[in-house]
This record gives sequence, C-alpha cells and structure tokens, in this order.
Amino acid sequence: MTHHDLLARLAQPAQSRIVLLVLDGVGDLRTGAQPATALEAAVTPHLDRLAREGSLGRLVPVAQGVTPGSGPGHLGLFGYDSRLPEADIGRGVLEALGLGLEIRPGAVAVRGNFATADADGKLTDRRAGRMPTEESRRVCDKLRVALESFEELSIRIEPGESYRFVLVIEGADLSHRVEDTDPQRLGVAPLELTAAAPEAAATCERLSRAVEIMEAAIADEPAANRVLLRGFSRLPDLPSMGDLYGLKCGAFAGYPLYRGVAWSCGMEVVPCGKRIGEIVEEVAKQWERFDYFFLHVKQTDQAGEDGDLAAKIRAIEEVDAALPRLLELAPDVLAVTADHSTPASMRSHSWHPVPLLMHGARCFADDCRAFHEAAAIQGHLGTLHSYELMGLLLAAAGRLAKYGA
Amino acid sequence: MTHHDLLARLAQPAQSRIVLLVLDGVGDLRTGAQPATALEAAVTPHLDRLAREGSLGRLVPVAQGVTPGSGPGHLGLFGYDSRLPEADIGRGVLEALGLGLEIRPGAVAVRGNFATADADGKLTDRRAGRMPTEESRRVCDKLRVALESFEELSIRIEPGESYRFVLVIEGADLSHRVEDTDPQRLGVAPLELTAAAPEAAATCERLSRAVEIMEAAIADEPAANRVLLRGFSRLPDLPSMGDLYGLKCGAFAGYPLYRGVAWSCGMEVVPCGKRIGEIVEEVAKQWERFDYFFLHVKQTDQAGEDGDLAAKIRAIEEVDAALPRLLELAPDVLAVTADHSTPASMRSHSWHPVPLLMHGARCFADDCRAFHEAAAIQGHLGTLHSYELMGLLLAAAGRLAKYGA
Repeated sequence: MTHHDLLARLAQPAQSRIVLLVLDGVGDLRTGAQPATALEAAVTPHLDRLAREGSLGRLVPVAQGVTPGSGPGHLGLFGYDSRLPEADIGRGVLEALGLGLEIRPGAVAVRGNFATADADGKLTDRRAGRMPTEESRRVCDKLRVALESFEELSIRIEPGESYRFVLVIEGADLSHRVEDTDPQRLGVAPLELTAAAPEAAATCERLSRAVEIMEAAIADEPAANRVLLRGFSRLPDLPSMGDLYGLKCGAFAGYPLYRGVAWSCGMEVVPCGKRIGEIVEEVAKQWERFDYFFLHVKQTDQAGEDGDLAAKIRAIEEVDAALPRLLELAPDVLAVTADHSTPASMRSHSWHPVPLLMHGARCFADDCRAFHEAAAIQGHLGTLHSYELMGLLLAAAGRLAKYGA
Repeated sequence: MTHHDLLARLAQPAQSRIVLLVLDGVGDLRTGAQPATALEAAVTPHLDRLAREGSLGRLVPVAQGVTPGSGPGHLGLFGYDSRLPEADIGRGVLEALGLGLEIRPGAVAVRGNFATADADGKLTDRRAGRMPTEESRRVCDKLRVALESFEELSIRIEPGESYRFVLVIEGADLSHRVEDTDPQRLGVAPLELTAAAPEAAATCERLSRAVEIMEAAIADEPAANRVLLRGFSRLPDLPSMGDLYGLKCGAFAGYPLYRGVAWSCGMEVVPCGKRIGEIVEEVAKQWERFDYFFLHVKQTDQAGEDGDLAAKIRAIEEVDAALPRLLELAPDVLAVTADHSTPASMRSHSWHPVPLLMHGARCFADDCRAFHEAAAIQGHLGTLHSYELMGLLLAAAGRLAKYGA
C-alpha cells in the first residue's frame, strides 16, 4: 500500500479549508560568503508571527541528496512519492507544459530537435547549427502549415529555445511507448519510428507519415531540414486528489509548468496573475469553491536561479506583505513551504531540505520564533519527506479518520 | 524483509531486562489557549532525572498525520509496523478484547447488533430502537441459554453497549472469511451468511444454524428480534516476540484491550490492578520470570479523552511517584513513552508524535533536562517510527548482534 493509499483509506469529509503556499525554491544556503539565508535576511513580521503560533519543520523533497525538478518537487507536496513509477513525468510532457501547452489525458507529448542532414540523408548536425529561436519559430510555422491537411492525428507544435520544439499529439488509440528517433551520433540517418511496446505500432505508423510530411516541408532549409523526436510521454497516471481525499482542489499558479503538474493531480486550474498579490486576490474570489488551495510563487526560485539574493529577499518580503489578506480568509490550515531549495549561491535547484511552516488550531505551538531554515531544525514537525506533508494537512484539517481501533 | 525480521535475524540472548512503560495518550498539545502540555505542567522530579541521565526522542505511531487506535499504537511499540497487512486487527477482535473476552488463536470474533424485523422478516430498525444496555444483557442471556445445546461450535456471547454485543466462536476448521449479514438498509431481510473465501463455507453452514437457534429464542422480543453480524475477524497473525527476539515477555495492563494486543504478540498476560502503584508491585513480584515487561497506564489517555488537563497532570505525577519503586528493580533498559497523543484540548487520540525517554547504561546522555514534548525535539534519539523502538531497546539491552562483519 502506498502512503497516499493509506491516507485515502482514512480520508473523511470535513468543513475545512487547507491553503498550501509554495514559495518556489525559497530554501537557501548559509555559507562563509553568505552568512544569512534569504529567509533570514528578509523582514517578515507576518511569517514570523505564524511561526510563533504554529509549528515548523523541514521537508526533504525526494530523498537525501536528490535535487528535484519542479515536477517531482510539486508532486511530493501534493502527497505523491515522486519515486513511484506512476509519478514519473516524461520530458516531453515537462517541455510542453513549460511552453504553456495544455496536455489532456491520453495526449502524447514529444520533444523535437531540428537537425541537419546531407544529400544522402546522413546527419551532419544534430542541433541544426544551434539556430536562433526566431529561425525556429519560422520553421515551426512551416511544419504547422504542412500538417494542416494531415487528418490521421491532431498535432500541435510549439517552438522552444533555439533548435528545440515540442509536439503534442492527440488521436484515437495513441500510445507513448515509442522509441526516440535521435541516433545520438552523426553520419547516420535519423532512426525510424519504432514501437517500444506492441500497442504503439499504429501510433508509429501514423506518426511516420506525419514526419514524412514535416520533413518534406523543410527539405530545402539550409540547416533545419530534419526532425528528431525524443521523450514520448503522457501525463503521469496518478489518482486525483479529489478521488483520493475528497478534496476540491484549486491551483493558483501564474506559470504553465506548475499549472500542468497541479492539473495532472486533478486540481482545477484557476487563471490568475503571476505575483502574490494578484494570486491572493483570485483566491479570495474563489474562496467558496474549493477546500484545498495551491498557491504558487515563482519569483523566489527565479531570483535563486539568477544568483540574485537581493531579489530573492524582495520576493519573500512581497509574500509577507500579502499574508494579512490571505489570513483574512481564515484558512483552517495554512502551510508555507517550497518544492525544493534554490540557493542564490548555487544558481540552481538543490537537494537541501526546505523549511515548512504549519499554522492552525491543531498545530503544536513550538519554540520557533521566526520562519527560516535554521529555526526549522528545532521545529515540532521534524524533518519529513515532502510526500508526508499531505497527511499532516489532512489531519490538521480534521479530514483523516482514526487508523484501527 | 520486514523490520522485525531484520531484528530477529540479529537477536542474541543476554542477561538483561527491558521495561517499556506506556503512558497511554500522554502526548499533548501546546496552543495559544493551553501554553503548557500536561507533561510540561506536571511536577515530575524522577522522570526529569531520567531525562537528564538518558536520551530523549519522539515516536511517530503509524505515519505522519495518521491517528492510531490503541491496537496499531501498541503494535508499533512492540516492534511491528502496523501498516503491514498481517498486523491488521479486525473490529470483531477489538470489540471482544475491549469487553474483556479472551480470544485464542484460531477463534473468530464477531460484532453483533440486535435489530428489529416485522412479521415478513423485513428490517424496520437496524439498532433495535437503541435499546438500553440492561435490556441487551437480558436478551444476551436468552441467546446463551438457547446455544447451550448447540454442539457444533462453542459460542461465547457478551453484551456491549445498547444494541451491541460480541460473539467469540471456537471450533474445528473455523474461518473468519465471512461476509457481514447487516444489509445496511431497512425494508429487506438480514443477509444470509456467505463465505468471502471458499474455506469459509463450512463455517457459514454451522453458523447459520446457530443464528437460526438464536433468532428462534428471541422471536417474541418486541425490539431485539433479529441478529446482525459484522466484522468477522481473528487475532492478527503475527510472529510472537518470544520467537522473534528470544524474549520472555510479560504484560502488566489493567484493561482488557491492551492485554489482548499484548497477548496477540505472544506476551504472557499477568493479572494486575489498574493503577501504576499496583502495576509496579506486581512487576516486582514477577521480576525473575520475564526479561521484557510491558506496563500500561490508562489514566493519562482517559484524562485526555475527557478533556481534563488537571487529571492528566495528576496521572503523570502519580506515575512519577511510583518510579523509584520501579527503578529499585534496576532494569537494564527503561523506556517511557506513549502509543499515541491524546491532547486534552482535542479530547481524542491524535497524530502528533509522542515523547520517548530511554534510560540505561548504553543510552547517550543528551542535553535534555526534562521529559516533555518540546524537550524531546532536541533529543539524541531523534524522531522515529514507533516500530523502530524495539531495535533500540534490544540494542541497549545487549540483545542484538552485529550486522555483517
């Protein structure tokens, strides 16, 4: 029995609202060169008050030492152990979600590379000379036009950066069990589309015809005259949070990747702005419609990725200033945490545990007086796996029955 | 390999005694309205001395956020992961143990409801008008008399509260894989006894005849004229602690449910009083007979369930006063902890981790100066699953060999 199955077995209805506020990548590092983390340096009277009244702890996103991408990081917060095979989010899906494409259940998402082949069809450049993104847009338009009359499948195409693009394929009896066509070396032709499982044979056949049409349309391009396909994938096949816990879940996220992950867990995605003030305003409008609210703040992670500690501190202070409006709504349980750390000094995601704050009537008022990484070490919640947070949220909201008698 | 299998593989004999003192439900909450937990408020010079000399830590009974019943809570303390299917304790068994009925291995325990049916045999009340408990005693006596001449099975019957009673069935080739006969709605007859697995066919046949005899005996009752059966179950099928670890285990518990759980783990149940003083006196008498002593104190949980913080504090202080007598026996390892928290403010079991104190020659003398929830956060033992305690007890008692070379 998985952890989420155990919780699902115990889930019971209640009149209570849970708010999960994710400050993406907010976890930071203290080093000789940076003696205070962003959370320590930021002035956060409201977070600190919540820390005094509630419980602190820390979440390990995937496993000790493992740096999560945004997909696994968020799946953990939503109660799924991201190490489970069914929680695997394919690269095609992530790339598509990252470019803002909606992926419906059953659709297959694929990463495309433009490549160059010589007159004999042998690859001379697997990245089409790292063509500019503008070029890619132009060539993608050619593909779209060529596919307009192709009726066997619906194929949406979206340019990414440089030679990268994404395809989202829909049609009857589709399978994602298709091998990559990138041979990973030069001097050979792109690989044929082949099925990794018997049920994908028809998908390969139809898709081969589509690739033929696409490559015919770009045959006279100087660089981008071939198409390599990788990372065939579908949305993760997870039971929805509604089915598991009886929660009506709303996702309030300004960026597509996070909306995609939330949507794949069965949340309703509510259009909203990108900054915390706009997000909280939208939450207030929709307060009666949901009993679980996922709020996503991107700016903390972006600042960490940029190595911009000052911007990270400002992003945290902006969140703190928006908290009174959120607290006016009187959520029964409020959790503030992150999907992973993004230390400014590392300019990237990291594996370091993230601080967790829980506030609500059934939370132990521990000795922590402020919300930051070092204070959280002393907290009552201890150090948990991210996927264990869901049980604490449900319990604190009165939504879990007793286990055994 | 389960955790208890790993420990069993390493278990070695030793001349040492382990005492596990369970203060049922002693874990409590600090909130704005209750700024000190029961353990913080209680005056406990002896517990605090043990805390100074030994190690503190915290146990998570089942999983984060999961509130255990008494069965799973204690199975964890006895070294079994209560999430394992074989550790599942059925409702019939629990109800029977709770009413003080002994259940031997192989016996099947069932919950009964008295119900009312009309002249056509259709149910008009599944709870027999919520008859008074006194009435239930009278009707149960009728059942007992009627079954005296039934020789196919031995059936013990014990009235519970109001319309509830319990049956404990013994006989050759019994199976508990029998479906409930409660149709869960009115206007229909009680369901026939049907087997949930082929091996239960004979059980159903014999039991159907018993139900016929019982219902004939109460046919003229105005309310309780039918019998509904639910929760067919057996003792959990766990390897005994004696077989696993070579321990000779004695259970000293004043209440039947805890005796039943201990007994199902292979402990010998020693009759004793309900208060800590009486329990410790009995332990002293039996000191030479066992090398693992389970002492159960119920009053802490009862006070928590009653929302009576003062009574919880008094119960803790009563335990503290009895400690010198227990320590005179010089156990090699003494652990004090709980099966779960029962915060007075919640008046119910909860999921919050419970404090753990371990005292013995091989325990790290950490910086904790008192035994309570907040101090335990800082303890050397950290935060563990309850089922991990057994390994620490065995190790501290010199009863675990090295793993590998």
